[in-house]
Amino acid sequence: MAGWVQDGDALVRQFEHKDFAAAMAFVNKVADLAEEANHHPDILIHGCNKVRLTLSTHSKGGVTDKDHALADRVDQL
Amino acid sequence: MAGWVQDGDALVRQFEHKDFAAAMAFVNKVADLAEEANHHPDILIHGCNKVRLTLSTHSKGGVTDKDHALADRVDQL
Repeated sequence: MAGWVQDGDALVRQFEHKDFAAAMAFVNKVADLAEEANHHPDILIHGCNKVRLTLSTHSKGGVTDKDHALADRVDQL
Repeated sequence: MAGWVQDGDALVRQFEHKDFAAAMAFVNKVADLAEEANHHPDILIHGCNKVRLTLSTHSKGGVTDKDHALADRVDQL
């Protein structure tokens, strides 16, 4: 979970890739994990090569085990 | 260009899709257009099925023809 920070009611982590194509490849892997988990982060692709993921369980109003589990899976990519 | 609004130094448009998979398919098409144009918008996937695109030419400090051209191509998707 290194690199993730609590920001309000969400877990947030910023990733930097070598270029836009690498950032998109990463985003597609995250999207696959999100679909498997049926738990969808907010994903911001910005500055050409950066990706910010924001994990929260809106139905619970904050960070839950579902968010930690998805963060763990993202960290294993 | 309907649906695009000027927001500060950027052109912004929000898109809503039927689900996360449809939003991701759209994002990948936008990413292909961005790579072709070598001009990369900020892309926010949020609320499971929504995509917000933010177009700006940072080197020029605002919206240029490159942004309008990419917006037009996105509108043709």
